[in-house]
Amino acid sequence: MVLELLSLTNPVFKSYTFWAGVLVLKMLAMSMLTAVQRFKTKTFANPEDLMSPKLKVKFDDPNVERVRRAHRNDLENILPFFIVGLLYTLTNPSAFIAINLFRAVGISRIVHTLVYAVVVVPQPARALSFFVALGATAYMALQVIVAGAF
Amino acid sequence: MVLELLSLTNPVFKSYTFWAGVLVLKMLAMSMLTAVQRFKTKTFANPEDLMSPKLKVKFDDPNVERVRRAHRNDLENILPFFIVGLLYTLTNPSAFIAINLFRAVGISRIVHTLVYAVVVVPQPARALSFFVALGATAYMALQVIVAGAF
Amino acid sequence: MVLELLSLTNPVFKSYTFWAGVLVLKMLAMSMLTAVQRFKTKTFANPEDLMSPKLKVKFDDPNVERVRRAHRNDLENILPFFIVGLLYTLTNPSAFIAINLFRAVGISRIVHTLVYAVVVVPQPARALSFFVALGATAYMALQVIVAGAF
Repeated sequence: MVLELLSLTNPVFKSYTFWAGVLVLKMLAMSMLTAVQRFKTKTFANPEDLMSPKLKVKFDDPNVERVRRAHRNDLENILPFFIVGLLYTLTNPSAFIAINLFRAVGISRIVHTLVYAVVVVPQPARALSFFVALGATAYMALQVIVAGAF
Repeated sequence: MVLELLSLTNPVFKSYTFWAGVLVLKMLAMSMLTAVQRFKTKTFANPEDLMSPKLKVKFDDPNVERVRRAHRNDLENILPFFIVGLLYTLTNPSAFIAINLFRAVGISRIVHTLVYAVVVVPQPARALSFFVALGATAYMALQVIVAGAF
Repeated sequence: MVLELLSLTNPVFKSYTFWAGVLVLKMLAMSMLTAVQRFKTKTFANPEDLMSPKLKVKFDDPNVERVRRAHRNDLENILPFFIVGLLYTLTNPSAFIAINLFRAVGISRIVHTLVYAVVVVPQPARALSFFVALGATAYMALQVIVAGAF
């Protein structure tokens, strides 16, 4: 049973593995995006990071802060998905539903980053992408709770 | 062996699954709580979120910031519990100890949120709930390190 | 197959377990380090935390903020490693490569904390330790994506 559930021959686990890998890379890219904005705007948070003696530490550049808010939103939403997606896979769900939930989370979180931190798109673009991933993650959490409770 | 350890027929894994699901839902609820406070106090961090042209971005509302601090505390404590609880389950621990550790983390982190971000309760309410979960998580981490080292 | 992959008889999983446990403890220690700095500099973020009626809430102490930045950097980098390291283990990688990647992440993240939040060391100490862990995590993510995609 578990043998099959966490094996790459299980299409649900295979899909989870793919999207988890993609979202980890996406999150690591946020650090790079923050670094780009820091160098572009010369906004550094630590004295040892200042490239020139004329610079001072700065914390309030709106471009840097925007990327940091998007990154924090990832921490709040993608990281809980990682564990709940794995546990949901272990409840042996319908492959059709599970694979589409993983796709929904993966795609909507990429869209969330694009409209928040790359090209700012007016609302409700960000709100919609946020709620698609939140809804899918909450549904998986409920399934996991039911599986653990009864 | 592992077959049984990550199966819902293993009472330790079943309990872990339940509490992990509950804590994921609890963490997602923090986003909703933040949104409630943002709309109540009209505190929005992005220009594209402003509901009226009279509003300006604001970052220092104490009610919003309180919920955000509670949420960040969840990221710092619940997310490491997720991985260490799973690995602890894979060390095949005593069911009695493991299930009570998961309960301790689950209940104390819910209490932590209640006394921090819902109804502010004087200290040491928050400190106590914080340290119960931290102690249980650190104990599991030590068990996992021992299992991995020898 | 999976039976062996998530068993402590698998040296890759054993190594992952060890380093995941160590890094969870390291992350929990950041909370203690923050608390030490808060008491030392009397910087408390909540009215209910103030030890004396003469104190006021404070948010901008550089020593507290430095530890908090190091802690947030852990959330951004160590937590994604936890899931990707587990999934990478499930792809049945070369033990030699996998164990050295886990070591690289574990040691470089400990060094990152030491040079960032304990004894401030001039750059590029922090940048180097940051990129070693990031590179190893990104490599594992790519392997996981490939395993999930084909």
